[in-house]
Amino acid sequence: MVEDEMRPGEERAGIDPAAMPGDAGVCFIGHVSTPWMTREECPKNLRQARERAAGQAGAGYAVKVDEAFRAGLAGIAKGDRIIVLYWMHRARRDLVVQAPRHAEHPTGVFALRSPVRPNPIAMAVVEVLGIDQRLGVLDIDAIDCINGTPLIDIKPWLASIDVPPDT
Amino acid sequence: MVEDEMRPGEERAGIDPAAMPGDAGVCFIGHVSTPWMTREECPKNLRQARERAAGQAGAGYAVKVDEAFRAGLAGIAKGDRIIVLYWMHRARRDLVVQAPRHAEHPTGVFALRSPVRPNPIAMAVVEVLGIDQRLGVLDIDAIDCINGTPLIDIKPWLASIDVPPDT
Repeated sequence: MVEDEMRPGEERAGIDPAAMPGDAGVCFIGHVSTPWMTREECPKNLRQARERAAGQAGAGYAVKVDEAFRAGLAGIAKGDRIIVLYWMHRARRDLVVQAPRHAEHPTGVFALRSPVRPNPIAMAVVEVLGIDQRLGVLDIDAIDCINGTPLIDIKPWLASIDVPPDT
Repeated sequence: MVEDEMRPGEERAGIDPAAMPGDAGVCFIGHVSTPWMTREECPKNLRQARERAAGQAGAGYAVKVDEAFRAGLAGIAKGDRIIVLYWMHRARRDLVVQAPRHAEHPTGVFALRSPVRPNPIAMAVVEVLGIDQRLGVLDIDAIDCINGTPLIDIKPWLASIDVPPDT
């Protein structure tokens, strides 16, 4: 939705972050590689992406790290779980209350995983299926974005802190 | 570490993101409020922050959302688990291989949760202890950063996607 349309009940933020210079600069460290070339064919969430990949070896999901940052992959191994942060560069940034098709009521953006948010950072917890550090490629089990989406971070997923206490 | 020091085995990235204009702009949507005024007294990770808060009512951890974005809190309730993304504005951004004191070997940044990374985005999964939407304040159980750290996103934590399959 780069479009300017709004559904009933939706609200704009007091400012549009996309129209501002930004308080800090994000550096794209690589990109995400997926089978999805358009937003129409792209899975709507990680669960859908995983279902479509089920049982397919080499489903074509990967993150690719640019040469300047590849040394940062040292220590990641096949089977690891990682957190991928990616920048939803096609998403508008001005809607703080949204009415997704699946939701009953308009809801605040901070209670939604919508790519439309003040900072269009998406997050996926995924499994590393293979790694080629020289080429900067991590094959992963699934991810829910179009091919070429900018990559901004990779972190190890740690059950000790990333699952809330009393879960 | 805004300092330019390096420990044995550490490596710089081919480029320093802090010295570049940035590929996209991050908007600070609020800030994190903690009892820690300096990096020296700040807990080193979320586990430590949680231990220090244990048993203290009103330990003083909160996220505060600026007025322009407060409507985005609608739908968050006490007891919810949320993902907080914050910008570690004091951290250098050029080290891709790091030798943290707790680690045996120098390790790639993408296998570490260090605040020193190309994009200094930290992530914490926390519990909402209270909410005042009018003031834009979410009281939370713990977080591992100094007072005033810029806030960049809040997302709902969803066990169905944020815990990897087969965990």
